[in-house]
Amino acid sequence: MDSKQFKEAATSAIDEIVNYYDTIENRRVVSNVEPGYLRKILPSGPPEEGEAWADIQADIETKIMPGLTHWQSPNFMAFFPASSSFPGMLGELYSAAFTAPAFNWICSPAVTELETIVLDWLAKLLNLPECYLSTTHGGGVIQGSASEAIVTVMVAARDKYLRETTSHLSGLELEDSIAHKRSKLVALGSEAAHSATQKAAQIAGVRFRSIPVSKESNFALTGEALEETLKQCKAEGLEPFFLTTTLGTTATCAVDDFAAVASVLAKHAPPNVPGEIWVHVDAAYAGAALVCPEYQHLTASFEHFHSFDMNMHKWLLTNFDASCLFVRRRKDLIDALSVMPSYLRNEFSDSGLVTDYRDWQIPLGRRFRSLKIWFVLRTYGVKGLQAHIRKHIKLGEVFADLIKTRPDLFTILSGPAFALTVFTIVPKTAGKEAQDQISKEVYELVNKRGEIFITSSVIAGIYALRVVSSNPLAEEQFLRKAFRILVETTEEVRDGKVITKENSI
Amino acid sequence: MDSKQFKEAATSAIDEIVNYYDTIENRRVVSNVEPGYLRKILPSGPPEEGEAWADIQADIETKIMPGLTHWQSPNFMAFFPASSSFPGMLGELYSAAFTAPAFNWICSPAVTELETIVLDWLAKLLNLPECYLSTTHGGGVIQGSASEAIVTVMVAARDKYLRETTSHLSGLELEDSIAHKRSKLVALGSEAAHSATQKAAQIAGVRFRSIPVSKESNFALTGEALEETLKQCKAEGLEPFFLTTTLGTTATCAVDDFAAVASVLAKHAPPNVPGEIWVHVDAAYAGAALVCPEYQHLTASFEHFHSFDMNMHKWLLTNFDASCLFVRRRKDLIDALSVMPSYLRNEFSDSGLVTDYRDWQIPLGRRFRSLKIWFVLRTYGVKGLQAHIRKHIKLGEVFADLIKTRPDLFTILSGPAFALTVFTIVPKTAGKEAQDQISKEVYELVNKRGEIFITSSVIAGIYALRVVSSNPLAEEQFLRKAFRILVETTEEVRDGKVITKENSI
Repeated sequence: MDSKQFKEAATSAIDEIVNYYDTIENRRVVSNVEPGYLRKILPSGPPEEGEAWADIQADIETKIMPGLTHWQSPNFMAFFPASSSFPGMLGELYSAAFTAPAFNWICSPAVTELETIVLDWLAKLLNLPECYLSTTHGGGVIQGSASEAIVTVMVAARDKYLRETTSHLSGLELEDSIAHKRSKLVALGSEAAHSATQKAAQIAGVRFRSIPVSKESNFALTGEALEETLKQCKAEGLEPFFLTTTLGTTATCAVDDFAAVASVLAKHAPPNVPGEIWVHVDAAYAGAALVCPEYQHLTASFEHFHSFDMNMHKWLLTNFDASCLFVRRRKDLIDALSVMPSYLRNEFSDSGLVTDYRDWQIPLGRRFRSLKIWFVLRTYGVKGLQAHIRKHIKLGEVFADLIKTRPDLFTILSGPAFALTVFTIVPKTAGKEAQDQISKEVYELVNKRGEIFITSSVIAGIYALRVVSSNPLAEEQFLRKAFRILVETTEEVRDGKVITKENSI
Repeated sequence: MDSKQFKEAATSAIDEIVNYYDTIENRRVVSNVEPGYLRKILPSGPPEEGEAWADIQADIETKIMPGLTHWQSPNFMAFFPASSSFPGMLGELYSAAFTAPAFNWICSPAVTELETIVLDWLAKLLNLPECYLSTTHGGGVIQGSASEAIVTVMVAARDKYLRETTSHLSGLELEDSIAHKRSKLVALGSEAAHSATQKAAQIAGVRFRSIPVSKESNFALTGEALEETLKQCKAEGLEPFFLTTTLGTTATCAVDDFAAVASVLAKHAPPNVPGEIWVHVDAAYAGAALVCPEYQHLTASFEHFHSFDMNMHKWLLTNFDASCLFVRRRKDLIDALSVMPSYLRNEFSDSGLVTDYRDWQIPLGRRFRSLKIWFVLRTYGVKGLQAHIRKHIKLGEVFADLIKTRPDLFTILSGPAFALTVFTIVPKTAGKEAQDQISKEVYELVNKRGEIFITSSVIAGIYALRVVSSNPLAEEQFLRKAFRILVETTEEVRDGKVITKENSI
């Protein structure tokens, strides 16, 4: 494909993408292909001779589109959004054109420096304490996902804990102590924390223990529950070294009691003392709301914590992946993750004047992801981003208010919080089992029909439905439509009169 | 930015990218900005009001370009290439448009299914044994980088080893045994293996030991050296559980003696028996050459190994990132990396009929990276990819032949192998110290002048220069130019007549 062919191909691709976005609401939001659909319609190997772009492009609509679940559709109200935007796409395009696995500063200084700068912009925009800025001892780094970020900081926390708590030992005694401690290390997170913490513990080779939450505290981690778990761990000879605390849990967007967490830890594992517990704030989704002053009080305790992560690729108009991780002490990452073979040595790295982000992450190579963040921040501006968040918060309230108009059908379990409403279906005959059963039936029927796509979750044992109104294309009409579908489907299921209208759109 | 504005912006971006590629050879290949250059010319925060695309785009040429090291320039002969291509960029563009962190099959079935299919295509194209296909017990998965792939399989190997060697125990005895074994686990790789294995060991919390290589065996891992290390480990009470073996080492593109590795392991840690050593083949760069039948004999022993990884983003025309990891038993990955909270449950995953790639990797979410691989394989076709590789192999021979014409200035240390030539500079007065010194001086002066960009490496204690001729835009004229520059610079340095011509282009 030469320059001329690329221009034609790209123009055609841009047209197709624009048309896709302009008409996306007409597509069935969740794919209804059967597992294995694609293998049946693709050849068993690559072609011997190259093919023309027109032939390749034609397959996108006919073969790929049927298998897509359209996360950008305004009818997508599942999980959390994965918001894309046009400036984000332009960033991705330039990033591909400038391809460079910029593991060192000299590999492409702009890749490193723009990342440092836009992450400092973002830290200020989100009202993070100054200690998270690169101009102090901290700084930000773009990771692929919030789960990758958690593994990264957990490994740093593990090695820091082991190093600091055994620094008085040497030789065989040191080795034995580390071996023993390794087997006793435990990472903590509330029951409502994302499963990424448990997975990170598996990867780091440490234990995981979850701290119970309850409806009474709106599914948020409390100081009491943390204290209780710390005591239990101690009684069992375990050594807690890491805690994930969440700003906007996956199931209900609960916000943990950060002040209480800081206060309990100050008592049980004082900061800046060997044995301190690394506290990571997982704000993957709801952290985006911190661009609005009315949410910025939530960061008040963060100066006592160690790391913070927010995904611009969820609610802040930047296509996946753009997980923004901030640490208070970059040295902790570098101590754990730096390896320096001769072919990576260079005068700039040796000088200590530059940042080599490979030491802040698991992979060596990295993409130029700060470009898209830069484009998004500049295209929308601070006011544009605030308006974007506030619109969705408002839509969440509209939806929750609609749900409240039908107490005969729905009970709100939680929210609206950060544009998420969580509710259960009222069964014909009261009882938890009946409630779980009908909630599940309604959920499954709604998704099977595919006019909207929502998720369910089991929260403190209760089966509930989640509707998120923070899709970039979300509008009141779509939330009203979702409400109508939920009412109709619930009435059908309650009355045992399910109408077969599969694949209706 | 609405549809219309995006069309205009994208058209303008495409024009800029085409122009960038058409004139890239005229740019200084390695950036010569000073550390911190960008902060001086950017504002200290994002704008309050959104900006127009024209203003943003203008900053790319004026502010970003000076800080780029142009990996796509034909004058880039450093590290290994990070090859981009127009079809790859189109894939990235669609991937951004279809943004979906497709962690489950139902999140976007096409994302999962296309990945399985193109990785099966690739496995066959590379002549991997059938056990690495998804149609058997294996399969491929796209990772971000070869280093990420190594962490992923090392964690799987660690957990498999611990599980299988302690399966006869229970209770406290099991816990003690695992704690003890954890402290004794050691991952192996040759001295010439990429530092990613050492870093993976740090992340997985295990020891790392490197196996010596020597010039006599052309810096490849031998069976004897492996056997010796295994015996030493045993004598020290260590438990080797993982070995990285390399097809194309970073420094010299050495190929380990796979048959000998298989044979030594069959004796010391028999496969399919508890305590077997997981063998990972790191073919990050040179694995691309397996698309040519003349290299396919190299895969003969891979049926005895456990995983294989090759980066399409190095030498196979796909922009970073596209690291293709294949495993012989996908169950090993899933056993180590699966976590299943309620909000990720769905009927499709529960059915076992679909692949959930989140269980094959560290992160949860994932991009639609198979699109660009699909576009590249189809645009070039098998023959096009073979021609691409063979052209570069040939250019490597041309360059090495040039180097050989000046034995008074250069001594080839290794190669040409897979388009890489490694050589040292002949000092005026013989001696290792003088040779290392002048090699370093020539290397630094060449890169400082920035007409070409090359890398150096220390190989078995010898300081050497590396020239790689596998850049997508590589042509004989650029290799001849590189040779001329090396001759002139060497003569200047040898004669102590370094001319100041910094920033000459």
